[in-house]
Amino acid sequence: MLMETLNVALGDKSYPIYIGANLLSRVDLLLTSLCHPKVVVVSNVTVAPLYLQRLCDPLRQAGIEVCELQLPDGEQYKNWQTLNSIFDLLLRSRCERSTPLIALGGGVVGDTAGFAAACFQRGMPFIQVPTTLLAQVDSSVGGKTAINHPLGKNMIGAFYQPQLVLADTRTLDTLPERELRAGLAEVIKYGLIRDSAFLDWLEAHLDDLLARESTALSKAIRRSCQNKAEVVSADEREQGERALLNLGHTFGHAIETGMGYGEWLHGEAVAAGTMIAAELSCRLGWLQAAEVQRIDRLFVRAGLPVNGPPMAVESYVELMQHDKKVKNGRLRLVLLRSLGQAVVSDNVPLAEIESAIRARSAHD
Amino acid sequence: MLMETLNVALGDKSYPIYIGANLLSRVDLLLTSLCHPKVVVVSNVTVAPLYLQRLCDPLRQAGIEVCELQLPDGEQYKNWQTLNSIFDLLLRSRCERSTPLIALGGGVVGDTAGFAAACFQRGMPFIQVPTTLLAQVDSSVGGKTAINHPLGKNMIGAFYQPQLVLADTRTLDTLPERELRAGLAEVIKYGLIRDSAFLDWLEAHLDDLLARESTALSKAIRRSCQNKAEVVSADEREQGERALLNLGHTFGHAIETGMGYGEWLHGEAVAAGTMIAAELSCRLGWLQAAEVQRIDRLFVRAGLPVNGPPMAVESYVELMQHDKKVKNGRLRLVLLRSLGQAVVSDNVPLAEIESAIRARSAHD
Repeated sequence: MLMETLNVALGDKSYPIYIGANLLSRVDLLLTSLCHPKVVVVSNVTVAPLYLQRLCDPLRQAGIEVCELQLPDGEQYKNWQTLNSIFDLLLRSRCERSTPLIALGGGVVGDTAGFAAACFQRGMPFIQVPTTLLAQVDSSVGGKTAINHPLGKNMIGAFYQPQLVLADTRTLDTLPERELRAGLAEVIKYGLIRDSAFLDWLEAHLDDLLARESTALSKAIRRSCQNKAEVVSADEREQGERALLNLGHTFGHAIETGMGYGEWLHGEAVAAGTMIAAELSCRLGWLQAAEVQRIDRLFVRAGLPVNGPPMAVESYVELMQHDKKVKNGRLRLVLLRSLGQAVVSDNVPLAEIESAIRARSAHD
Repeated sequence: MLMETLNVALGDKSYPIYIGANLLSRVDLLLTSLCHPKVVVVSNVTVAPLYLQRLCDPLRQAGIEVCELQLPDGEQYKNWQTLNSIFDLLLRSRCERSTPLIALGGGVVGDTAGFAAACFQRGMPFIQVPTTLLAQVDSSVGGKTAINHPLGKNMIGAFYQPQLVLADTRTLDTLPERELRAGLAEVIKYGLIRDSAFLDWLEAHLDDLLARESTALSKAIRRSCQNKAEVVSADEREQGERALLNLGHTFGHAIETGMGYGEWLHGEAVAAGTMIAAELSCRLGWLQAAEVQRIDRLFVRAGLPVNGPPMAVESYVELMQHDKKVKNGRLRLVLLRSLGQAVVSDNVPLAEIESAIRARSAHD
């Protein structure tokens, strides 16, 4: 059983990412971070029936008391109420600030449980066990945790690094097709912003990935995590380079919030948002029309949307004002200087932004 | 106008504490941390009518847009609902992650607004302007922020350091008598845990402090902040020495939670809790009965309770299980080795703890 180990280098907050098949029951990997007789596992009602036992049984056999909590499934539950249900469990089951919390699930579980771990008694040890492609390549790595606010996605949160990330590639066997495709949006993102060789590889192997060919999936996950780990190690708190990871996200978050959380999957909104950003990069003379077409074609092959929903341009602009990258009232957008090179720009005329959104909006 | 400056040394998170009369309108001190055209000031309905304008007018005259929010007053409002009202304001008024948030008020305002600042967009700049003795000598310094949970005080929070602390001693002129006395409990604490010379001084000058004699108050605030800054600089995240600052707090939090937040002031609960800890230290042979009496006398002179409420010992024990210092199910208590030297102990027999609580419980 091949396992790969990557490292997120953050001084005394450094941690390993383990990637491989059947890692869920590798209690030895978990135990290095579990110096406590009790552990809490937060999952959701979809993932728990499939994988909770596989994770918890070996822990219990190792003599560890396991408290379980199943959250409802969906982005619309990434809110206060769900967060409070975690705090209630932690207090009722007498968890301590040294009790580790494991998040078993996709991005919503990881973000919500991670934020709970960051806040409970001002911080308890946290372990990510991502079970979706999106979580394995992006959200479980780098320490961003958050919940949504009705006015903006990921508005309330913390930078809080996990002790380790355990990505069992076999959990993708049961991933719904739509979620696999949504995860590919974040994989493709790494190629677009900083790794053009990976972009070439993705074009050549997209069909293998869609067929869930395990060697291809492992390589895509590893390469994505490598890219993310490098960026996060250089800029943990998004003072600079880390912002580039948000390609398509300013537009994407507006779509997710505007349509109602859970309507569009995060990866779907990111794909459409990336096409708006590419469109804008083309209007600025940075990308050629053929390059925009190349991105468009790859997303279409991956079954991802290349146009936003029929949402008013004014709604985008209003929602984007809440984006975390806004500074002194100016929108700061991640755009593409070229394929494989993203930049942040804060001086794109609003009219250009609006016309790019219109060009990439589906019509009713 | 004399002003003193202390420094909390925490590497790139270091910050100054300014102490002095009439500092509220010293916009020059604030401006060093305000590189933003907008600022949010969070206060409460008691403090705002007295001091909000004095702080905000000079800011507005300096061309800064000021958004104001008044929270309800009292420990019982240190909760989710209040926290969310801050997030709503921040989003409605289009605050950015670089917009500074100023907390103007006592410990509840500082803890709640500070936690909001820690979480909003994963962290915005934060400034403490404490207006109670307790906040000036303790809660505004050191970066502990939190809200309460029905099962435990300060259970949900973050370590989040402010950019600066501005303690205007003139705001104590309007402080209700009961709150002044409550603040003295935390002042006396520093003498008990690590500064016996300060304890001697407090005994000699308690009447001056109660009379709000300004030189005495300034000295007490400065010496308290010095002690706190030293401890926090050595141990920001309470891995060791910082726990000693919690003398009386494990018992005190149980009193506050058990009686219902807001019934006992924090300082009152800390005084009674400190007497339980002193009683226990005496039973362990560390303090002499005369020394316990000495502490008792000082608290009585300060008008503070030296006995807990008529609350069942079982309630204390149940509530103390949620204390943040509990480790592997063992209560860890801050006790006094001698006057001026606190220690953490995790092997005090429960029977001894219970009998100390009983000895210091008021009877119905």
